[in-house]
Amino acid sequence: MAHHRFSPTGYHNVLGDRDPVLRITDGDTVTTTTIDAAGRDHESVERAPRPNPMTGPFFVEGAEPGDALIVEIQRMSPTRETGWTYSLLAPNVVDPEILPRLPERQRVEWAIDRNAGTVRLMEPPSAVADLVLPLDPMIGCFGVAPGMGQAISTATSGRHGGNMDFRGFAPGAVACFPVFEPGALFFLGDGHACQGDGEIVGTGIETSFEIEFTVWLKKNANHGWPRGETESDIFTVGNARPLDQALQHATTEMLNWLGSSFGLDPTSASHLLGQVVRYDIGNVFNPAYTVICRVAKTWLRKPDSALGWLG
Amino acid sequence: MAHHRFSPTGYHNVLGDRDPVLRITDGDTVTTTTIDAAGRDHESVERAPRPNPMTGPFFVEGAEPGDALIVEIQRMSPTRETGWTYSLLAPNVVDPEILPRLPERQRVEWAIDRNAGTVRLMEPPSAVADLVLPLDPMIGCFGVAPGMGQAISTATSGRHGGNMDFRGFAPGAVACFPVFEPGALFFLGDGHACQGDGEIVGTGIETSFEIEFTVWLKKNANHGWPRGETESDIFTVGNARPLDQALQHATTEMLNWLGSSFGLDPTSASHLLGQVVRYDIGNVFNPAYTVICRVAKTWLRKPDSALGWLG
Amino acid sequence: MAHHRFSPTGYHNVLGDRDPVLRITDGDTVTTTTIDAAGRDHESVERAPRPNPMTGPFFVEGAEPGDALIVEIQRMSPTRETGWTYSLLAPNVVDPEILPRLPERQRVEWAIDRNAGTVRLMEPPSAVADLVLPLDPMIGCFGVAPGMGQAISTATSGRHGGNMDFRGFAPGAVACFPVFEPGALFFLGDGHACQGDGEIVGTGIETSFEIEFTVWLKKNANHGWPRGETESDIFTVGNARPLDQALQHATTEMLNWLGSSFGLDPTSASHLLGQVVRYDIGNVFNPAYTVICRVAKTWLRKPDSALGWLG
Amino acid sequence: MAHHRFSPTGYHNVLGDRDPVLRITDGDTVTTTTIDAAGRDHESVERAPRPNPMTGPFFVEGAEPGDALIVEIQRMSPTRETGWTYSLLAPNVVDPEILPRLPERQRVEWAIDRNAGTVRLMEPPSAVADLVLPLDPMIGCFGVAPGMGQAISTATSGRHGGNMDFRGFAPGAVACFPVFEPGALFFLGDGHACQGDGEIVGTGIETSFEIEFTVWLKKNANHGWPRGETESDIFTVGNARPLDQALQHATTEMLNWLGSSFGLDPTSASHLLGQVVRYDIGNVFNPAYTVICRVAKTWLRKPDSALGWLG
Repeated sequence: MAHHRFSPTGYHNVLGDRDPVLRITDGDTVTTTTIDAAGRDHESVERAPRPNPMTGPFFVEGAEPGDALIVEIQRMSPTRETGWTYSLLAPNVVDPEILPRLPERQRVEWAIDRNAGTVRLMEPPSAVADLVLPLDPMIGCFGVAPGMGQAISTATSGRHGGNMDFRGFAPGAVACFPVFEPGALFFLGDGHACQGDGEIVGTGIETSFEIEFTVWLKKNANHGWPRGETESDIFTVGNARPLDQALQHATTEMLNWLGSSFGLDPTSASHLLGQVVRYDIGNVFNPAYTVICRVAKTWLRKPDSALGWLG
Repeated sequence: MAHHRFSPTGYHNVLGDRDPVLRITDGDTVTTTTIDAAGRDHESVERAPRPNPMTGPFFVEGAEPGDALIVEIQRMSPTRETGWTYSLLAPNVVDPEILPRLPERQRVEWAIDRNAGTVRLMEPPSAVADLVLPLDPMIGCFGVAPGMGQAISTATSGRHGGNMDFRGFAPGAVACFPVFEPGALFFLGDGHACQGDGEIVGTGIETSFEIEFTVWLKKNANHGWPRGETESDIFTVGNARPLDQALQHATTEMLNWLGSSFGLDPTSASHLLGQVVRYDIGNVFNPAYTVICRVAKTWLRKPDSALGWLG
Repeated sequence: MAHHRFSPTGYHNVLGDRDPVLRITDGDTVTTTTIDAAGRDHESVERAPRPNPMTGPFFVEGAEPGDALIVEIQRMSPTRETGWTYSLLAPNVVDPEILPRLPERQRVEWAIDRNAGTVRLMEPPSAVADLVLPLDPMIGCFGVAPGMGQAISTATSGRHGGNMDFRGFAPGAVACFPVFEPGALFFLGDGHACQGDGEIVGTGIETSFEIEFTVWLKKNANHGWPRGETESDIFTVGNARPLDQALQHATTEMLNWLGSSFGLDPTSASHLLGQVVRYDIGNVFNPAYTVICRVAKTWLRKPDSALGWLG
Repeated sequence: MAHHRFSPTGYHNVLGDRDPVLRITDGDTVTTTTIDAAGRDHESVERAPRPNPMTGPFFVEGAEPGDALIVEIQRMSPTRETGWTYSLLAPNVVDPEILPRLPERQRVEWAIDRNAGTVRLMEPPSAVADLVLPLDPMIGCFGVAPGMGQAISTATSGRHGGNMDFRGFAPGAVACFPVFEPGALFFLGDGHACQGDGEIVGTGIETSFEIEFTVWLKKNANHGWPRGETESDIFTVGNARPLDQALQHATTEMLNWLGSSFGLDPTSASHLLGQVVRYDIGNVFNPAYTVICRVAKTWLRKPDSALGWLG
């Protein structure tokens, strides 16, 4: 259960079979840094091209296809005092008829105050005298190599994770990815200081971070899609277009999980989900959209496993 | 500001230009009853055919096309001790590949305990020793006549409301519908004792209710879609397929609302929505799906209007 | 087998349970007139409001719910010398990103030359010196009352037909609608002098027509969606959004038809459809989109029925 | 303008930055072979794993990002006497409600008769006494490296081409791909002896081929999506889900093409497309669906370019 510190010297714009930057083991913790979605580091120096340059990949000893990689997000600390967003709703989240009436999209800056725990729009429009929001960090893009020789752009997402932009992937949350390649090959980046549901301006508040995470292996997991856990909930993630299909993937993965880990046959799982399920929209901006299917732990019995709820 | 008590003697399976059952006025409160989605009343006697027979319509004096009808849900009391659901996830919410492996759908009964505030599955599968959920009433289907001579089935929804199956339409919440016909012609029914997001088994816990609501008129509102308010949030509703389009409608309606009532131009509204918006999925079962776009009141200044946040 | 001539004096903007204008019988032919989508008649006088005012309904003696109404389009003759279209692709058929760069939509006129069999853009942009297209009439909107008390706008479509805007509904073709109300209650209108696939400028070349059609009844048909026949093909029609769902409806209806009329079990039908099916896109503009599933008659044996391919 | 003969010794399951197998030049013709979607060669020996193993990549001298690679399909000759298909409609092309009633999918064999120009189902169900279809070869999957370090599975498609399964990619047709990597890196495979629209059983009649093709370069083309040409038509290709989005991509690409090569501003192009456009559905089975936007050459003036209609 070592604690590694890793400073990246290069970045990747795909999740794929790339040379590992560090070999780690079940139970290890890593502290590393990420640059922003446009490739800017803690000094706002451009280190890599778009989209979403990734730190990694980390090779997890013993990880084999069919396993699952569990990643606990321990901490996210912004490493600079500014972040940026786009200034306008993305074209695909509003009725197309209104697009000709909207102003042009611009890139705007936000001030990050780590002590106050806030982000503040630096040059607000006059209609917004002062826009101060909570500093609420999350990971926009992370995941593993997708296998089969694929190298998938960090602009999109899939069964392997990727650019899901779900604001629930925040410190304290645990993510879990199906493993497709030996060593899993874990990548991360695209940190946001804050983001609403759907990433509907096409960005969160994009900035650079120091991130600390811990990994575990679940052997022979045979998961189909990313899963996760917060203090109160378990959840599954579907990535596809339209949202309808993303929701189908997430719901099917939850149905499978309720069966294999919680002993609920499809009818029992349906009785529960029908009345207590919650859905969240991760993003409706990227090539693949993201829907989360979530169930409160209060309705379930914790599995008798060293890996707890994800076991 | 009269308080009416109305006992229905007939029901409608469409929202349209039907003879009013009662004429009410801005500020009035109505206490009435609804039967369940299958037409059963408080004694489980079938009073009307499916789908979702409606009580009403109520004619609101002075309501004209272009106005908006505000409906505060004051109270919902179940009027019998059982409700029913379907026993299996709907075919359209899971990956189609798994459908041949699922058991047949059945109709099952739940016991409603008004004192305890719970609903209990009456014959649970063995995997679910005992399934007891909170009694959490909501209105599945309500709205106004859609205008233009249309009579729209209570199985679906649109700009006029209808079968939205959003669990936020609960006591304490306020709904607001665009008016398309003189008198608005307000209908309601399809109460649920509990329901998860999406109504993914095709039902909530369907039962009969006594419902108390109060109406106000907003003149010359020119809303495009249903809106609403809870203690903490304002929200808009989009009804369409796929979910992507429902989300576009809801987001566009919120953009318009933030402009007209809160003084936010599209750029200012985008800055806010981009980082704080929340989306809920009303239903993913009916012919039109429902997406809610929600913003916490804490980010907004209450309009200086007799109608408060909806003004 | 009477031949009726009917001159309408009023029009409907919904398909629903309206008073019949004429009672006709199995085998009868009707010659009547339709006004254009904006309500203009053969003298360009506005006779009814938008959208798509319908002539009818015609009550077909003996038609009962569960039957099917067969409508052969015998002839369509434009009754004036101009038609109109919109001048720009609809917002929903192009990438939303390009919409702010497009010019405003205008209404433009076309000259119809019945002798030459052509339509000509009257004031062409300079880039189009002269745009002359074939006069190729078709019916944009027709169908029957949808039942269950519904009255559905002529802007959209469903199982009952409606605004399908499929250019295959042309003279020589036969359409077939499920019957939901006694007498079927057949409506028609929205004739186009020409139209591409998808109705992607939001109109065909809209004009007024004299139309001659013949009806037959298929008793106890139990169809789910509109069907049809041309000299070379049989086809089914699905109406929904997104196109994916319209295609599912059309394909399922064809699978059912191949079973009940042509003796092909699902596997046999799949072998055939997999290698010879053709899909057409009716419209991608209306609230419900339209997809046609088509099979050449050459691959099938004509049913031994008085109603031929539709029997 | 050399004629190369190339016999592959290895295959790829992604389109990406792989070592070229042959360097060719503008105007060159290549005769090579492809194995079937399951990796079987002309002797039915398995040479590579699924999905859709590709022959290539071919490096085209002088091709640079921003150029377009034109590929004329000169000839496709099946190299064995059998092909295979699946026996049932794919789950996503029918209404999900009917899936539990359908039989299980099986793999079935077809006999290919090169002399007769037919394919025949080898063990037809009793309802199909004899199913003999025309031998109508086409390429299911071909395209170029997608750039940005991506390696995209041959199961899906995108701007770079890939698994489009459009039956129009047949001998005599010309395809045109945007170039994203130096040398373009052209791959091809997944030949079908026959296929209906949509590839709705999840396969065409899959077999091995000898294929002859000729390449040309269009410098600084700045295309966004694949394009193509047949004797009668020009067409563009959009790949995405849902079909609605694929159609948007294809239509936007056609709008751009009509502007840059045919001098039609958006209004002029709209006048033409609105009344004469044709849409084809390539596939509705793969992760990305494929829609073709097609215009008859008769409505256009051939560009004054050495590359003809694609110039």
